[in-house]
Amino acid sequence: MTKAIYAGSFDPITNGHVDIINRAKGIFDFVYVAVSHNLNKTAFFTIDERISLINGIFKDDPKVECNGLEGLLVDYAQKKGVSILIRGLRAVSDFDVEFQMSLTNRELAPKIDTVFLMTDSKYSYLSSSLVKELVHLKADIEDFVPSHVKDALKEKLK
Amino acid sequence: MTKAIYAGSFDPITNGHVDIINRAKGIFDFVYVAVSHNLNKTAFFTIDERISLINGIFKDDPKVECNGLEGLLVDYAQKKGVSILIRGLRAVSDFDVEFQMSLTNRELAPKIDTVFLMTDSKYSYLSSSLVKELVHLKADIEDFVPSHVKDALKEKLK
Amino acid sequence: MTKAIYAGSFDPITNGHVDIINRAKGIFDFVYVAVSHNLNKTAFFTIDERISLINGIFKDDPKVECNGLEGLLVDYAQKKGVSILIRGLRAVSDFDVEFQMSLTNRELAPKIDTVFLMTDSKYSYLSSSLVKELVHLKADIEDFVPSHVKDALKEKLK
Amino acid sequence: MTKAIYAGSFDPITNGHVDIINRAKGIFDFVYVAVSHNLNKTAFFTIDERISLINGIFKDDPKVECNGLEGLLVDYAQKKGVSILIRGLRAVSDFDVEFQMSLTNRELAPKIDTVFLMTDSKYSYLSSSLVKELVHLKADIEDFVPSHVKDALKEKLK
Amino acid sequence: MTKAIYAGSFDPITNGHVDIINRAKGIFDFVYVAVSHNLNKTAFFTIDERISLINGIFKDDPKVECNGLEGLLVDYAQKKGVSILIRGLRAVSDFDVEFQMSLTNRELAPKIDTVFLMTDSKYSYLSSSLVKELVHLKADIEDFVPSHVKDALKEKLK
Amino acid sequence: MTKAIYAGSFDPITNGHVDIINRAKGIFDFVYVAVSHNLNKTAFFTIDERISLINGIFKDDPKVECNGLEGLLVDYAQKKGVSILIRGLRAVSDFDVEFQMSLTNRELAPKIDTVFLMTDSKYSYLSSSLVKELVHLKADIEDFVPSHVKDALKEKLK
Repeated sequence: MTKAIYAGSFDPITNGHVDIINRAKGIFDFVYVAVSHNLNKTAFFTIDERISLINGIFKDDPKVECNGLEGLLVDYAQKKGVSILIRGLRAVSDFDVEFQMSLTNRELAPKIDTVFLMTDSKYSYLSSSLVKELVHLKADIEDFVPSHVKDALKEKLK
Repeated sequence: MTKAIYAGSFDPITNGHVDIINRAKGIFDFVYVAVSHNLNKTAFFTIDERISLINGIFKDDPKVECNGLEGLLVDYAQKKGVSILIRGLRAVSDFDVEFQMSLTNRELAPKIDTVFLMTDSKYSYLSSSLVKELVHLKADIEDFVPSHVKDALKEKLK
Repeated sequence: MTKAIYAGSFDPITNGHVDIINRAKGIFDFVYVAVSHNLNKTAFFTIDERISLINGIFKDDPKVECNGLEGLLVDYAQKKGVSILIRGLRAVSDFDVEFQMSLTNRELAPKIDTVFLMTDSKYSYLSSSLVKELVHLKADIEDFVPSHVKDALKEKLK
Repeated sequence: MTKAIYAGSFDPITNGHVDIINRAKGIFDFVYVAVSHNLNKTAFFTIDERISLINGIFKDDPKVECNGLEGLLVDYAQKKGVSILIRGLRAVSDFDVEFQMSLTNRELAPKIDTVFLMTDSKYSYLSSSLVKELVHLKADIEDFVPSHVKDALKEKLK
Repeated sequence: MTKAIYAGSFDPITNGHVDIINRAKGIFDFVYVAVSHNLNKTAFFTIDERISLINGIFKDDPKVECNGLEGLLVDYAQKKGVSILIRGLRAVSDFDVEFQMSLTNRELAPKIDTVFLMTDSKYSYLSSSLVKELVHLKADIEDFVPSHVKDALKEKLK
Repeated sequence: MTKAIYAGSFDPITNGHVDIINRAKGIFDFVYVAVSHNLNKTAFFTIDERISLINGIFKDDPKVECNGLEGLLVDYAQKKGVSILIRGLRAVSDFDVEFQMSLTNRELAPKIDTVFLMTDSKYSYLSSSLVKELVHLKADIEDFVPSHVKDALKEKLK
């Protein structure tokens, strides 16, 4: 059984993330979604809230399990016995950041490899940061996140 | 009469921005300059000060009007009855950010389109952030901003 | 009346080109479509055939006129009394080529400026070369070009 | 059993290609290596010679099978019952070409997805074209291709 | 005697920086290493600590001298009588930032020129920020920084 | 005495190349200009004609010597006892090609290093190919090449 890990801060999960998870499910037998702290940015949702928003979509999916991530991703992978990391690529991705992350992980754990999947081009400009910025500006974010995430964002902003 | 909106944080306006406004005036009949809050960065000048610095150049120009921007740019455009947004492209622009912004605006308001103009190559490396960094380092910024902006920067730093 | 020129080799016109022409019509009062020789590549259709394929879409459009282009684009623009050139940008465009072309034209004719429009993201990967390659490989190109262009490609390949 | 296809012109196979095939073997249960014609470039080796050079490495590997590719890659994939395409990414890859190819394949066959693997950074600059250019210039290509490929290149050049 | 300046925030010095300094020593007769404040990021080590970590490697090297940098780099260069600035390029560098910096320096001091050296590809993903992030996550950073820098990082984190 | 080699096809030399040679003269004690065959493109001028056009500028310059280049650049460098290669970077350069070339040369001859110099931004879009294309289209190329090169291009086209 080939398992893979899709890690990120998911603050919050967007339709682009959902698209990648669904593609990953078509390729691998099991997908761990690992929710990490984001050292550089102030969090909007707590790790637990983010996991809960992801579970709102995949809780009953036998091929997906969502957990919080503490420490190094490659350590988490080794603990879970997983050797494949998934990253989503968007046409407007920051490749440099992606390459840095992957080459670093490869240096830290040579047996763990990263595979890149490409999001649907309709999500090519979508990111959690964009969604948060749009919510602040009172934009309609219906096309960008699942509806329970939209509700949680509005609730949080009150 | 074809009107267009050139939005940005203009904190402060640089010679590169002035160049884009002048090019826009050659293409469109009227140009709204919309000064937005910048969610990610600490402002140096207030919105009112920034408008005042822009008006120091274009106040008597019948083809240019400068206002503050609250809320979504596409909402502002719709209120003004304008369907064209202007963005300046520099050889060293961050295209990803430009594309994300334009595709998001197109998703939010499909009838509003973005046109990109290219700055003079002598301004290809110029940005408001650079100007502020140089002022902090006591560099001569004469070639980068209009002289009244230079004075305002020095006054502010005292 | 603001006129603009959209030049290219259009060998053949794709849905991406059609999208740009339609966007240009929403911004400018009149659009010249100028079909140029392509010095670097072997032509598939003659200039006359390419004009004819474009006219198959825009012949009765009072805002569009299609011509062949001999010599320099900026000379053609000056002869037509047009000071705006249009270029389509795709998320996967070759920006370097675009910048080189625009800066060269600006050097040759400083009063003529280039505006960039962004194609619909569903055409972000589409090009005439791709279409020709797919036709060679017997792929279905229905989503990529207007149907009379598809027929012309098949006819040509016989 | 998860199968994947790694297609390319492999004219000739380099150590970078070998690295990607080995990584793919660690992720998937079976890898088809599909050798395609290259429409844009003059071939150095025939398809049969290229298959033979690949078989020189993977002939006895139960997880790898090498074939020639005629027609569309997605048709080949469907015939083989494979829904995963592999592409190698190098830090200095031409992402635009990669995205164009993947988005086109996704348009032609939505159920077939592309995964990108990253080559070892020591091969980040390596390509078949480079190898051929170096051979022409009498450079030592020992670090770039398997030794039997090196011999075949020298033989061919005589 | 040709002297050059390699400026940066070096917070802390990494093996990639050491590689660039060693390459610079092979090209120029003398290399000033100038440690600057970083306006945008919170410092981890003080300027004095960073100089001390650099001196831990190059203190006895007659071709290298390390100093703190206050004010503009081009002013420092002129004071030292140096007309060459060195920048390290990584395959995954942010070229835009590099170009902006170099063109700005050229505007401020036309007689001072920037030369770019390329790091060893094994350091292509390495940066001070990455090192600090990894230390926070308790990763082994042995391959990324000299051992006395590793010790200082651990000491600092206590 | 620090010597460096600036190699290229120079078909023909442009003002951008001249700018790089002049910058290199400010940094190094002696500059070899090496004129190479271009495997991928049809030559416009012969190697001898190109050397002659370069000598038309630098013949009497004691710091510059121009020669034809046969075989590998790193072999030429070793024969001349030179360990520094110069490349010109333009804001719109193809970095991938530059990196590939430099990393390959470093692999072939680890003791030879490449330094990148940045052209004046007014030449950022200039290349020999552009010049040849413009000459074909009867454009005025006065700002792009020295006048004796312009004459030679016109003579050649007759």
